[in-house]
Amino acid sequence: MEEADFVSGGTRLFGIVGDPIEQVRSPEVFSAAFRRLGRDAILVPIHVRPDDFDVCVPSLLKVQNLDGLVFTIPYKARACGLATTLGAQARVVGAINALGRDRAGRWRGEIFDGIGCVEAFRRRGITFADRRVVLIGAGGAGSAIGVAVAAERPRAIRLFDRDQARAEGLAKRIAEVDPRIEVAVAPPAIDDADILLNATPVGMLSDSGIPVAARHLPDRLVVFDAIVKPERTGLLALAQTCGCTTVFGREMMAGQIEKMVEFFLEPPAGINAA
Amino acid sequence: MEEADFVSGGTRLFGIVGDPIEQVRSPEVFSAAFRRLGRDAILVPIHVRPDDFDVCVPSLLKVQNLDGLVFTIPYKARACGLATTLGAQARVVGAINALGRDRAGRWRGEIFDGIGCVEAFRRRGITFADRRVVLIGAGGAGSAIGVAVAAERPRAIRLFDRDQARAEGLAKRIAEVDPRIEVAVAPPAIDDADILLNATPVGMLSDSGIPVAARHLPDRLVVFDAIVKPERTGLLALAQTCGCTTVFGREMMAGQIEKMVEFFLEPPAGINAA
Repeated sequence: MEEADFVSGGTRLFGIVGDPIEQVRSPEVFSAAFRRLGRDAILVPIHVRPDDFDVCVPSLLKVQNLDGLVFTIPYKARACGLATTLGAQARVVGAINALGRDRAGRWRGEIFDGIGCVEAFRRRGITFADRRVVLIGAGGAGSAIGVAVAAERPRAIRLFDRDQARAEGLAKRIAEVDPRIEVAVAPPAIDDADILLNATPVGMLSDSGIPVAARHLPDRLVVFDAIVKPERTGLLALAQTCGCTTVFGREMMAGQIEKMVEFFLEPPAGINAA
Repeated sequence: MEEADFVSGGTRLFGIVGDPIEQVRSPEVFSAAFRRLGRDAILVPIHVRPDDFDVCVPSLLKVQNLDGLVFTIPYKARACGLATTLGAQARVVGAINALGRDRAGRWRGEIFDGIGCVEAFRRRGITFADRRVVLIGAGGAGSAIGVAVAAERPRAIRLFDRDQARAEGLAKRIAEVDPRIEVAVAPPAIDDADILLNATPVGMLSDSGIPVAARHLPDRLVVFDAIVKPERTGLLALAQTCGCTTVFGREMMAGQIEKMVEFFLEPPAGINAA
């Protein structure tokens, strides 16, 4: 009988939980990473409806060969309650996108969106230390990015969100991470900025808009866009035209996946701390 | 980023539920069959402890992209309660090894062990109609085989099990399938038999025993052994030496898997009948 070589009785399971689920790319990417690392593990899509979440997902955690779950829309905040211990990022952001079984069988939660952004910059050799950062968008991704960047000791973070209260909430959390950072909630002025981060959906898919009012960007500015599709958003196109260094959403994605695979396969010491 | 080609966000999930789970071969075999048929579907191992079964498995059925479960030791009888409708075999045997979602979203249960045995014979062009059958073993596999063979209109079935009550229970169920069959509970005499079926574990692994007292088998006898490991049991070796036709456990397995894949992917009309 013909036999598949990518799954066996000994395969360790991981899943991505969301609603809807068809559009996710984690199954392809994580399963390939596990394989490349020689691990008999696979990540599968798990489509759970909101009404079923509270019964269904805790039960999934009882499956003995299930070692981790990724959470996507709309479950990042709700999944927080499943973790026995939360990582440093998740505690501040109040959401997780990864839940992993530790060696003692407890469930550790962490959010890697912001960690992925910082990792993308690290790979490019660009540091946030002492830099003036402008962050547009204080929603799920923006919060995670703001909190992760704050841990990198920037000099200043200027925040903007159409929802003023949301921006102020994030400002407060950033100040808790490191009170030495100059945090301001204000429109995204880029005159004295070193790094511009877009974490809004402006520029996504068929939206050709740009999240800043500027027609020109100074070439010293490093411009990042969290959007993955299209790869080259209107903002990044403008930045390239102006001679700025650009960091792409897919780089954040790659950085995030690498960190999540590490988290799932080799729990780093200390991340269990409650 | 590297991407696996065997799983995606749109993959339909199937699982095999058991305790333990590492030894099962269904993930390799079913996943390969789905792939060969061009279906974006995968079967993964799901290790559920007995204490968790009643909470965990009904929850798994709420996962929207999970379309079917295979049940193995120790859950074949217990899983019966998960089905909304039972197939003809399952109703008589009182156990299922497959649970599939029908087009209306209800769960249909059926047991395929016996169906696989009958299919193996059909592929060889050997019919049970009007034949005298000796069946040794009236446990899980034996019951399923007995009930499936009974539906093929044999002239007689002679049953033996070390547990007399178990053999008598199966005899009664066979009579319910077709009252015209001459059913007897008696030691496995092969003098006037056409087909000998072993559904006991005698001959399994390092057990070199043979489940009949005979040293010689008439060459008109067709001999089947449900055991998969070793492939050539002591009984089958003796049968070959005596010039008998032999049907192997792996042939039953192959027949069963083909029928289960059909059941999972293309619910046949009528199997939903309660």
